Amino acid sequence: MAKYQQLVDQLREQIEAHIWPTGEKLPSLRQQAEQSGLSLMTVMHAYEVLESQGWIVSKPQSGYYVAPRAASSRARPPVQAIARTDQADTNSFVFDVLQATRDPAIMPFGSAFPDPELFPQRQLMRSLVKVSHTLRPGDALNNLPPGNEALRKILAQRYAQQGITLSPDDIVITNGAMEALNLSLQAVTEPGDWVVIENPSFYGALQAIERLKLNAIAIASDVQQGIDLQELEQALQRWPVKACWLMTNRQNPLGYTLSAERKQQLVALLARYDVAMIEDDVYSDLYSGQDKPLPAKAFDRDGRVLHCGSFSKNLVAGFRVGWVAAGRYAQRVQRIQLMSTLSTSAPMQLALADFLSTRSYDTHLKRLRQTLAKRKQLAQQALRRVLPADAHVSDTPGGYFLWIALPEHINTTALYHLALQAGISIAPGQLFSSGDQFSHCFRFNTAWPWDSRAEAAVETLGQLIAQLAGARR
Amino acid sequence: MAKYQQLVDQLREQIEAHIWPTGEKLPSLRQQAEQSGLSLMTVMHAYEVLESQGWIVSKPQSGYYVAPRAASSRARPPVQAIARTDQADTNSFVFDVLQATRDPAIMPFGSAFPDPELFPQRQLMRSLVKVSHTLRPGDALNNLPPGNEALRKILAQRYAQQGITLSPDDIVITNGAMEALNLSLQAVTEPGDWVVIENPSFYGALQAIERLKLNAIAIASDVQQGIDLQELEQALQRWPVKACWLMTNRQNPLGYTLSAERKQQLVALLARYDVAMIEDDVYSDLYSGQDKPLPAKAFDRDGRVLHCGSFSKNLVAGFRVGWVAAGRYAQRVQRIQLMSTLSTSAPMQLALADFLSTRSYDTHLKRLRQTLAKRKQLAQQALRRVLPADAHVSDTPGGYFLWIALPEHINTTALYHLALQAGISIAPGQLFSSGDQFSHCFRFNTAWPWDSRAEAAVETLGQLIAQLAGARR
Repeated sequence: MAKYQQLVDQLREQIEAHIWPTGEKLPSLRQQAEQSGLSLMTVMHAYEVLESQGWIVSKPQSGYYVAPRAASSRARPPVQAIARTDQADTNSFVFDVLQATRDPAIMPFGSAFPDPELFPQRQLMRSLVKVSHTLRPGDALNNLPPGNEALRKILAQRYAQQGITLSPDDIVITNGAMEALNLSLQAVTEPGDWVVIENPSFYGALQAIERLKLNAIAIASDVQQGIDLQELEQALQRWPVKACWLMTNRQNPLGYTLSAERKQQLVALLARYDVAMIEDDVYSDLYSGQDKPLPAKAFDRDGRVLHCGSFSKNLVAGFRVGWVAAGRYAQRVQRIQLMSTLSTSAPMQLALADFLSTRSYDTHLKRLRQTLAKRKQLAQQALRRVLPADAHVSDTPGGYFLWIALPEHINTTALYHLALQAGISIAPGQLFSSGDQFSHCFRFNTAWPWDSRAEAAVETLGQLIAQLAGARR
Repeated sequence: MAKYQQLVDQLREQIEAHIWPTGEKLPSLRQQAEQSGLSLMTVMHAYEVLESQGWIVSKPQSGYYVAPRAASSRARPPVQAIARTDQADTNSFVFDVLQATRDPAIMPFGSAFPDPELFPQRQLMRSLVKVSHTLRPGDALNNLPPGNEALRKILAQRYAQQGITLSPDDIVITNGAMEALNLSLQAVTEPGDWVVIENPSFYGALQAIERLKLNAIAIASDVQQGIDLQELEQALQRWPVKACWLMTNRQNPLGYTLSAERKQQLVALLARYDVAMIEDDVYSDLYSGQDKPLPAKAFDRDGRVLHCGSFSKNLVAGFRVGWVAAGRYAQRVQRIQLMSTLSTSAPMQLALADFLSTRSYDTHLKRLRQTLAKRKQLAQQALRRVLPADAHVSDTPGGYFLWIALPEHINTTALYHLALQAGISIAPGQLFSSGDQFSHCFRFNTAWPWDSRAEAAVETLGQLIAQLAGARR
């Protein structure tokens, strides 16, 4: 844990224990530094964090005082604030989990990607061959940020089909959604800023926030209802939040889709507090039912939503092409991209533009959704057979993840290590939160052929869970 | 200018003017904040910068005092320290210059890329078609960081041909050298750290340092000899430098190549001060003469050099494939890449691996070097005809840039704007330094067919320069 964080925790405990009562003056920065042996910079940082969290207030030309706060709110802080910490261990664990899913001998229930055999390889390669024959030497320049014009036009048309009007110039083509999200976050924050995420959330958000020296506020999110808008508003009242990084459709890892009404409320709330929204919508085409749900971007009136999409989860993983409809931030995103990776590969952009100009994409997506729905159902059935009766398996429509909550005493990081030895990967709850409240949960990828190998792997997983359950009883 | 920087400048001037004599106690942080109306954080930051630059020292439990320093060194600071500033304007100008080179109607003397018609388009596309036929759906996973194994092996073999032994596992394939450089910088620094660059230097280095909230120290670099190693050592003595970002072969924009001896001295010096080196070597294959010069990496004994290369300047710009031989930082670079862009496009990696496994690459490079040398000579001749007699045109072997120093009263940013109106781009000196000492210089890209259009553009450029020279006389 960072040194300043230790001081933050210590002072917060002391304030909670009324060692420093409301209104009391705290030691000056220099006094605190001398007492604690910490540097002035560290103490300054700790006081800053405490101030931004509402525990203390600074009075000009006087010093720092314990803030007046209601006892009730202090007893149970409404949101979980994660200050910057040294998350080297978490990053290293995420890395290990990702690496494990690359070994073809491992059953990839922990993977974030669907079975690549579901993708229209032949048609895509046909587009790539076509591009190989027509690409001109100068095409690299034509595909610099904001990216290939034909591709941006097609994307704008797809937004238009949902009734969302935006200009191709609002769209920036990126090296996958991962770059889109990272560029977006950089476009709307400075180090030290506060960013709201869901709890649990995509580990990429946690990592990006850590890497860019931002502070995260994780808002409780329900497996059915999604992010708690009341808690969100409380957080916006209390912290100087600059941006939210949220998923509105088939949230990773929980799987929920916010209702259109809640999306609208969300955007209105963020507009009220002038907060930018990074909308991670990489599963948008993997809906269930007839109609593709709207993104929150559909309710954006002033360009504050940066809507990030990708082809990696529904068409082709290896091309590394995504985009962001970046609203008022489009030019900033482009500039940061020029400094970071310069641009997205020209042949990949052109091949996708070619493929998307055919009808194949929608035909493929329809079939993909059907296959994924079937596989998910089979996985749910298989899991229910082997899981303890008190386990909870999420049942949200669309996508290909299940979120499984085991009885609380079963640690899924232990399960992860045991399963890996047995040739099975899962994504343990620890990846999706900086706290440990999901240490009994895991994410399960159902997008694999439901054959005897998968059945056997689920059997083994069930036995390992039973072992872990027994070990603690 | 940032507020803290104003305070830094003000106090430095006051110290130089002996308003605060050596040994004098400065106002405390809180006093200074009250006097100046600045926040404590800003004052703290300013004092920190002054301390790291050796102007003041802090004494525990006492305060800040003016440091004892030799009058001579104060009269002429040996290196130019650039503290973080708001460089939004510079970034915006770089962006505008880059955008201008994309318009085919503009003569791209300001471009960083060579004429794409010089690249072996047909053979590359043959490799791409081959890949299109053999790519398997699962290949995306096999090409995640560190990247395609065959490609990393070929690169390791090319290092071995120069007598540099490194494992394919030291190499990480990236989205062009731009990503390689940025990942490297992130791998070896934290915000607030000090980084050495050349003066002048590649604008991408200045931008990355600004974006990652680092502090730059720009070391004077001579158009023939390259970076001044004495100044570098003085800087290492005086500042807590974490990393250098340097070019050793055909430095951009000056064009010099450090001698092998100086490269060895450089690496030894950095080892002595335990400083990491990011070596930007994207022009390594564009040498003149028989043998490819060694990179500084060849003298690296303990994995501190992150050697960044690319195919964008010598083979194909639009694929966006580069690499870093990252030594002891290889795993860190991979992890940061996984969080930033996930990986480099699989088809692009595979197509390059296929192309490089043939003899075509070396045949192409040989021809490319010959053509570039011829074009550069023609450009030099044309420029000498039109430039004022007191202009200086660099004459360094290899590469395709010329660095042109006009008489000091001619402002090349003004020239840039005039030239652009006449359909000609140049890269003004302002892009390559945060100071203004190169405001009479510009970089000129000679890698274009030397036809009547180019000749006419150089004529026009000469007339514009004469106009500007006359205007101030």
